[in-house]
Amino acid sequence: MCCNGRLNWQPIADIPALCHSAAMDGADVSRAPGSGDFEKRVRSSFAKQGLMSTLGATLVGISPGLVEIALRTAPAISQQHGFTHAGALSAIADTAAGYAALSLMPPGTGVLTTEFKINFLGPAVGDRIIARAKVVKAGRTLTLAQTEVFAESAGNSKLVAFLTATLMAVEGREGVSD
Amino acid sequence: MCCNGRLNWQPIADIPALCHSAAMDGADVSRAPGSGDFEKRVRSSFAKQGLMSTLGATLVGISPGLVEIALRTAPAISQQHGFTHAGALSAIADTAAGYAALSLMPPGTGVLTTEFKINFLGPAVGDRIIARAKVVKAGRTLTLAQTEVFAESAGNSKLVAFLTATLMAVEGREGVSD
Amino acid sequence: MCCNGRLNWQPIADIPALCHSAAMDGADVSRAPGSGDFEKRVRSSFAKQGLMSTLGATLVGISPGLVEIALRTAPAISQQHGFTHAGALSAIADTAAGYAALSLMPPGTGVLTTEFKINFLGPAVGDRIIARAKVVKAGRTLTLAQTEVFAESAGNSKLVAFLTATLMAVEGREGVSD
Amino acid sequence: MCCNGRLNWQPIADIPALCHSAAMDGADVSRAPGSGDFEKRVRSSFAKQGLMSTLGATLVGISPGLVEIALRTAPAISQQHGFTHAGALSAIADTAAGYAALSLMPPGTGVLTTEFKINFLGPAVGDRIIARAKVVKAGRTLTLAQTEVFAESAGNSKLVAFLTATLMAVEGREGVSD
Repeated sequence: MCCNGRLNWQPIADIPALCHSAAMDGADVSRAPGSGDFEKRVRSSFAKQGLMSTLGATLVGISPGLVEIALRTAPAISQQHGFTHAGALSAIADTAAGYAALSLMPPGTGVLTTEFKINFLGPAVGDRIIARAKVVKAGRTLTLAQTEVFAESAGNSKLVAFLTATLMAVEGREGVSD
Repeated sequence: MCCNGRLNWQPIADIPALCHSAAMDGADVSRAPGSGDFEKRVRSSFAKQGLMSTLGATLVGISPGLVEIALRTAPAISQQHGFTHAGALSAIADTAAGYAALSLMPPGTGVLTTEFKINFLGPAVGDRIIARAKVVKAGRTLTLAQTEVFAESAGNSKLVAFLTATLMAVEGREGVSD
Repeated sequence: MCCNGRLNWQPIADIPALCHSAAMDGADVSRAPGSGDFEKRVRSSFAKQGLMSTLGATLVGISPGLVEIALRTAPAISQQHGFTHAGALSAIADTAAGYAALSLMPPGTGVLTTEFKINFLGPAVGDRIIARAKVVKAGRTLTLAQTEVFAESAGNSKLVAFLTATLMAVEGREGVSD
Repeated sequence: MCCNGRLNWQPIADIPALCHSAAMDGADVSRAPGSGDFEKRVRSSFAKQGLMSTLGATLVGISPGLVEIALRTAPAISQQHGFTHAGALSAIADTAAGYAALSLMPPGTGVLTTEFKINFLGPAVGDRIIARAKVVKAGRTLTLAQTEVFAESAGNSKLVAFLTATLMAVEGREGVSD
C-alpha cells in the first residue's frame, strides 16, 4: 500500500477530507505541512512510543494530515475471544490521529489527545490491522481527526472500527514536544 | 485497596451508582450478579486476554457491577513524552467497563464493546494506574458503564481519564462467550 | 442542491461511504433501501416529529443511506452569543443520522438513537444550516452513521460540526415503528 | 427540588464529584465559584438563549459547578414515537454542562462546547425532564462536565440519558462572553 513511507493510496491533492464536502477543500483543512521535515518529525516521535513497539505497530505512511499505522495480529494483543483487543485498535487509531494532526502543526508544538470516541463495527480478525487517520479540521489549538481501522485477511479488507479524536497543540509545556 | 480480590472500597449496598441519583438505586441498576460464580467468570475471561498480560495489567477487584484493574507504569507502555500512553489507559478502562457489565450478565452470555468515549484530563504520570469501572445502567442487550482512571504516585491519586462505554450482551455467537 | 426530494449531489452508486475505503463498497454498507417506499416512510416519520417543526427544520433530501436536513437560522434557536445553539445542530444531525439508518431498515422496524458524539468546529453563523448524514455501516441490530453539519452564508459553506451516532433497529416494541 | 434557585439537593461540600474518588475532592475540582455573582451571570446568559425559551426549558438550580435545567414534556419537542426528542434532551444536557463549567470560570470568560457524547438509556416519557450537570474536572482552558438526564412521572424519576462534554473557556473573542 505504501512503498516509501509516503502515503500513496491517492495523490494527496485529490483526497477530499470528507467525500461530499466541498467546504473542506481549502480554508477548513490546511494541507500545508506544519514544517518541512514533518515526516522525520512524526517518525522520530513515533519511535519514542514504547507502547507502539510493545504492540508491534509500525508507521507505514505519512503525508500532511494523513497517517497510516499497521499492526500484525497476535495472541499478545488479543481479547478473550481471540480477536484483536479493542484497546489495541484504539491505541493505534489514536496514535494515527495524533500524528495526522502533528504533521500539520508548526515546529515546537507538541500534540496531546484530549478525547476520542471509537465505534467497533465487527470482530477484528485477520492477519493485519491498518489504522488510517486524516485530519477533518485543523485549528490553532484544537484539531479534529478521524481514523478508520481495517482488518485485512487474504487480500480482503473490512472496516472494524471508526474513531474521532480531538488533538490539542501544546506549546511551552515542559516535557511535551512533538 | 483490595485484599482478597473483592472490592472493598465501600460496602456494595452503599455505593450509589451515581452520587445524586435516587433513580439509580433499584430498578435502573440491577446489582444482582449475573451468576453465582461471577467473580470466577470474570477472572477466567481476563486471563485469556493476551493484551492485558502484555501491558502488565492485573485484575485487582470484582464486585457485581464494579471492576478495578491496575497497571504498573513502564517505558514499555509509554507515549512519546514518557507518560503512560492514552491507548494503554483506554485498554484497561474499556476492559474494566466490559467486565463490570459481564458481572451482571446471565451465564452463557458474552460481552463486546460497541463504542466508548474517553476524555483525558492530565498527563498519566506516577507509579501505578488504576481503572475503576461501574455499571451505570444494565439493559437486556446494551449496558452503559463508566470508568475513572487514576494515576497514583506516592500515596497521591489523580483522575487522569474518564470513559463511558456501551457493552453488548451477545448470545449464541460462535466463539463469543464471557 | 436537491430539486425533487431525492439527493442528487452525486449518483448514489458512486458515493463511497468513506473516501478511501474500498472495504465499504459492497458487503459493509448495504445500499439497498430497506423497502420500496423508503422515501415515503422517512417523510411520514419526520412529519410526526414535533421538535423538527418547532425548530423550523425541513427534510431536503433522501436516498438510501443518505439524508439531508436544513434549518433556517433564527433567534429562536440561538445560544447566548447569537450563534445557532449546539443543541439545535445536534437535533438535526441526530435526526438525519436516524433517518439515513431507517432508510435501509426492513419494513416494520423502528429506529432509536442509542448514543451520539458531536464535535463542534466553529461558530454556527450564517443563513442556513445543513446536516448531511450517511450510513457508515449497517448491521442487523446496530447501524453507525455520521453527519456533517454546515453553516451556509452567501453561497459559502463551512463545516461547523461532525457527529457519529449508533442507531438501533427496534422490532415489536409497542409504540416504536419507523 | 429547589426553592430559591440555589441547588439544595445536598450541601455542596458533601457532594463528591464522583462517588468513590477521593482524588476529586480538592485539587482536581475547584469548587470555588469563578466570580461572586456566578448565579446572576449564569441566569443572565441563559436568558439570552433563544433555544431554551423555544423548548420551554427553565433554569431550576445553580451552585458552583452544578446546574439543573427542567423541561416540560410536550408534543412540540417530541420525536416520531411521541417520546421527548433526543435532540431536546441533548440541548438541555449540553446547556446544563456549559453553565456548570461557566459557574467556575473567571469573569470576562465565555464558554463554548467543543464536543459532547450522550448515551440514551430508555424512552424519555413522563411529565418533566430534568438535566443535572456537574463539573468533573475544571482546567484553565478545558473543563469536563457530565450531565444525567431524568424523566419524571408521578413522583417517579428514571435516568434516560447520560452526557459528557468538553467545555472551552474563551477569552477575548469578539461576541463571546459568558
